[in-house]
Amino acid sequence: MTEMNLSRCPIGVFDSGLGGLTAFRELRRLLPNEDIIYFGDTGRVPYGTKSRETILNYAKQDVDFLLGQKVKMVIAACGTVSANVPEDFADSLPVPFTGVVQHTCAAAVKTTKTGHIGIIATPATIRSKAYETYIHRISPETRVTALHCSLFVPLVENGFIQSDNPVTRLVAEQYLAPFFGTDVDTLILGCTHYPLISEAVLSVLGREVPLVDSGGSCVGSVLDALAERDALAQPGRIRTEAYFCSARRADFTRVAQRFLGRSIDALTKEIDVEGY
Amino acid sequence: MTEMNLSRCPIGVFDSGLGGLTAFRELRRLLPNEDIIYFGDTGRVPYGTKSRETILNYAKQDVDFLLGQKVKMVIAACGTVSANVPEDFADSLPVPFTGVVQHTCAAAVKTTKTGHIGIIATPATIRSKAYETYIHRISPETRVTALHCSLFVPLVENGFIQSDNPVTRLVAEQYLAPFFGTDVDTLILGCTHYPLISEAVLSVLGREVPLVDSGGSCVGSVLDALAERDALAQPGRIRTEAYFCSARRADFTRVAQRFLGRSIDALTKEIDVEGY
Repeated sequence: MTEMNLSRCPIGVFDSGLGGLTAFRELRRLLPNEDIIYFGDTGRVPYGTKSRETILNYAKQDVDFLLGQKVKMVIAACGTVSANVPEDFADSLPVPFTGVVQHTCAAAVKTTKTGHIGIIATPATIRSKAYETYIHRISPETRVTALHCSLFVPLVENGFIQSDNPVTRLVAEQYLAPFFGTDVDTLILGCTHYPLISEAVLSVLGREVPLVDSGGSCVGSVLDALAERDALAQPGRIRTEAYFCSARRADFTRVAQRFLGRSIDALTKEIDVEGY
Repeated sequence: MTEMNLSRCPIGVFDSGLGGLTAFRELRRLLPNEDIIYFGDTGRVPYGTKSRETILNYAKQDVDFLLGQKVKMVIAACGTVSANVPEDFADSLPVPFTGVVQHTCAAAVKTTKTGHIGIIATPATIRSKAYETYIHRISPETRVTALHCSLFVPLVENGFIQSDNPVTRLVAEQYLAPFFGTDVDTLILGCTHYPLISEAVLSVLGREVPLVDSGGSCVGSVLDALAERDALAQPGRIRTEAYFCSARRADFTRVAQRFLGRSIDALTKEIDVEGY
């Protein structure tokens, strides 16, 4: 594939469901010329309660689907996948690959003043200790308090994302209670679904705690990886977007529209990812 | 296999997760001499948002696991599986098989006086129209109002099952609102998870609406199928129980204990069902 071709190829983004749209939105904002393909594995969500082996199998199929779409880069916009793939996962792929853990941790370490970072994520992410490990690699003295919030992904996937949704607020109050009265001054949203309910999280925590969003923080490294390969799209062309999900297409487009602020119905196809 | 052997074989019960314990508890109560093996597919729950094809694949693996345990009968204590397997599914199996749809519908038709039955279930069950179809087969004039309650299974699986749980009550209020002001006088819990939160459902609906529980209503036919084959366990023997799940063993045993009123920790193993 020539570099000219590469610049015209789309970026591939995947997640267990709707969460990766938080990275998608940030990519769209900062890389306005790029074609982007999004895959949400709505048929197998949630990933965060699965075994590590299952998560890796799913991730491989998700990546293979995107490679079949001739993407020039793959972004695992999923905290659970990012936290559970081996560190050399990228080496096995023909295009650059990034997850969301490292950039998120780096951003959080820069943000904290008390040196005490909170992490909320899925059970599989918390179990992996990937965020803690990376934080301690770059800043050994930083303290970390990590909590899993199992019901947040089902809440997002089922559309409980309005900022004043009373169910989501009540669940957030229960999960976040261990942070009250601590000196945690920076909170990592270690699952890309969580920014969809960040307003509920913020209002429960008190507005003074900065949230570090896993989806958004990976965009810088995407830009670097593409620039290094001279693979960035040229300005002035007509960009495209395509969305794929593996089940419940109508639910997917409905919640996505609420989050993205526009309809993606005509751009969305349902696929069978287990064939990849 | 001789009949003598059959009577000593266990009954196999499976569900996508914890829901089938509602059938298990009823089986234990009414068939106190039987050995029972329970499998909850906690690694792949929820089934109710999956495609029909995926549900059938999962169901076949679940059944194969139980057959490997030498069960004398298989009970799909899962509304989603029961509603989505083909009518001739039982014919392909070497032991009797029952789901939960038919007995539940028969019980609801007997219960209603207004002739208007409500059904709540997972999206895949509602989409299948299996409950409606069977109700109309035995009582063509009965009216049916069917609603899916997608978040109920995640709530149960994540332990939001206390009778006064404010999250579960709030969610129930939202889902059940379409029943207010109707003449629905009987409600089918079309998912075996739902009896675990029946108190929240009842208190939102008003206590006067009888709930027909999918798990409990299949026990009569289990008794018939076993008696017909002279395969009922003999009284006076020491019965056994075994529990299997496919992920999150600690969560499974914790919520199961709360529901069953006793610890099953020492009796529970985690297995890889995708190998079946």
